[in-house]
Amino acid sequence: MIKQVFTASDYMHMSHALQLAERGLFTTSPNPRVGCVIVNDGKVVGTGWHERVGESHAEINALREAGDLARGATVYVTLEPCSHHGRTPPCVEALICAEVCRVIMAMDDPNPHVNGQGKEKLQKAGVEVQTGLLEDEAQQLNIGFITRMHHSRPWIRTKIAASLDGRIALKNGKSQWITGEPARQDGHRWRARSCAILTGVNSVKVDDPLLTVRYIETSRQPIRIVLDSNLEIPLQAKLLENADTTWIFTVQADRGKIHLLEDAGAHVVVLPDLAGKVDLKAMITKLAELGINELLVEAGPVLNGALVAAELIDEIIFYFAPNLLGNSAQAMLVLPEITDLSEKYNLQITDIRKIGIDIRLVARFIK
Amino acid sequence: MIKQVFTASDYMHMSHALQLAERGLFTTSPNPRVGCVIVNDGKVVGTGWHERVGESHAEINALREAGDLARGATVYVTLEPCSHHGRTPPCVEALICAEVCRVIMAMDDPNPHVNGQGKEKLQKAGVEVQTGLLEDEAQQLNIGFITRMHHSRPWIRTKIAASLDGRIALKNGKSQWITGEPARQDGHRWRARSCAILTGVNSVKVDDPLLTVRYIETSRQPIRIVLDSNLEIPLQAKLLENADTTWIFTVQADRGKIHLLEDAGAHVVVLPDLAGKVDLKAMITKLAELGINELLVEAGPVLNGALVAAELIDEIIFYFAPNLLGNSAQAMLVLPEITDLSEKYNLQITDIRKIGIDIRLVARFIK
Repeated sequence: MIKQVFTASDYMHMSHALQLAERGLFTTSPNPRVGCVIVNDGKVVGTGWHERVGESHAEINALREAGDLARGATVYVTLEPCSHHGRTPPCVEALICAEVCRVIMAMDDPNPHVNGQGKEKLQKAGVEVQTGLLEDEAQQLNIGFITRMHHSRPWIRTKIAASLDGRIALKNGKSQWITGEPARQDGHRWRARSCAILTGVNSVKVDDPLLTVRYIETSRQPIRIVLDSNLEIPLQAKLLENADTTWIFTVQADRGKIHLLEDAGAHVVVLPDLAGKVDLKAMITKLAELGINELLVEAGPVLNGALVAAELIDEIIFYFAPNLLGNSAQAMLVLPEITDLSEKYNLQITDIRKIGIDIRLVARFIK
Repeated sequence: MIKQVFTASDYMHMSHALQLAERGLFTTSPNPRVGCVIVNDGKVVGTGWHERVGESHAEINALREAGDLARGATVYVTLEPCSHHGRTPPCVEALICAEVCRVIMAMDDPNPHVNGQGKEKLQKAGVEVQTGLLEDEAQQLNIGFITRMHHSRPWIRTKIAASLDGRIALKNGKSQWITGEPARQDGHRWRARSCAILTGVNSVKVDDPLLTVRYIETSRQPIRIVLDSNLEIPLQAKLLENADTTWIFTVQADRGKIHLLEDAGAHVVVLPDLAGKVDLKAMITKLAELGINELLVEAGPVLNGALVAAELIDEIIFYFAPNLLGNSAQAMLVLPEITDLSEKYNLQITDIRKIGIDIRLVARFIK
């Protein structure tokens, strides 16, 4: 394949399209975030982004704004335009109809219903097509969607708040608050962009969390999932008020409790078990089926450890508070003992920043 | 006191003087690092810095370079010039002799033999004096010297290399290497600037360290101190080869073992005991008497924990490696149990950077 050559203005317009795409960060789930900029004779004549499933795609919004000026124009779009009839008509047809001259896309659509076909149809209609401009940035924006399309599983992040000596709570369970308010607010940004938040039933029993997005404005609340192998969730749990976005994953077939939970509005999913607990790999597949692109885990050291040991976590968001709690306080991760350093779990740090008086560190597992 | 007003060129010359002072970072112990710039008619006519105890002070080196051009000049010096006869004659007299017009100093000398008197003598001789230019920067450069002069104790840093989950070694003791080579090299910079390095006898028994500066060029090796309450140090320990810079702090009066250690060239100091162990506060006072400005602790979780609990540590240099070891691995700090979060040890993060694939974080205790 010949390496594409892009100009500075190509980069500028695609950056713009990526910024537009990012406006959908909190809302497009389960769709990808997509932005589009239409440029005619050096001037931006139309911009658009996808906001919400069932509503118009970015290209359609941008074409609408461009009107007749789309004719002969160059279209910058962060993802390959769709070629199939989904919930909305195919964007490729609209682009051909509008007689655009050239389409530059950041990346191919990983959706098997599209992959390469959008490009092909455009080329057959005489539209010039280029791909790969700011591809990495476009991929990061939709890392969950890409992971789900390619591997039938979500991108899984876990969020861990700890002291500098790696402790997440005192021995007596106290953990409110180790980190400061700015770090906790930042945690809500990760919630807001997630399709779902997963916790374990023990965290529900101890902390009784709401798991909603609060500090951040959003028009969509992620779904909330409790991993509860033995259906131990208390019926008074806050997660069971307004429970229509609450899912409970279990292996327990206690029909009575299931009915009570369903009466409260929650969704109960019975999954295959592995030694009496939900089979985590089966759970991951189920999450993909539910359209979960990005999953945020907010759990204790046992569930986090089990997910790390099963190599199911992709990324950890650490919040380190500038304090020390000592060795009697609770460990960050309960993991099987390692006897040689070659067995350690290796990550790569992708971002470090100070948030309030705390440090946020993002790290991805090296697989 | 009237707030001094400094010009941009004052800042420039004092910055220059601070950079010169920093050249003595590895060598001036137990003296402070000092730099000096002499400016006449807008031109730098002399520069100097203090390199080593017994050798000329920064001001004398700068005056020597300036020669007759010092007459009527402005002198920028990072620390108040000395007014007493120490190992070298007083700098104040040399400045007056050279007929300089103005002396701008970053900070007063905390040394009780000097404090304010240098300034006073200059003023009496008709030299204009200003203080406080880049004072904070000057203080950071000599934080150990200042701490020793003001509080009769060294500035104490401890260096901790850990996984992201706060573990410093596997359960079986393996810890070579959790962090990467660039981080270990950086550790030698902290060694090089320290007057002394302190370790515990258990670390000597387990790791048999040299505790010398190796990756970094330096003409001075810090002294090496082993805290060894029961004189358990093996006579084969590497610290006892070329032992003239090795000090052993103990409470044990086993004359035979002391003689053997002294025969090997080491210095043995018997200190007051507290429940069978060296009284840490007495040790700190002894360190100050020995002229230790900056002490680097390289110890295990027990000694580090004891020093933290006794509130004797000023600063921690954390190296976090991007890996996870799990809860069976060794804790960073053995501390008494905390039952309420208000009792946590609070620090302030003063520096974060990536070193190789690791993160270095510097944090100071809030006292």
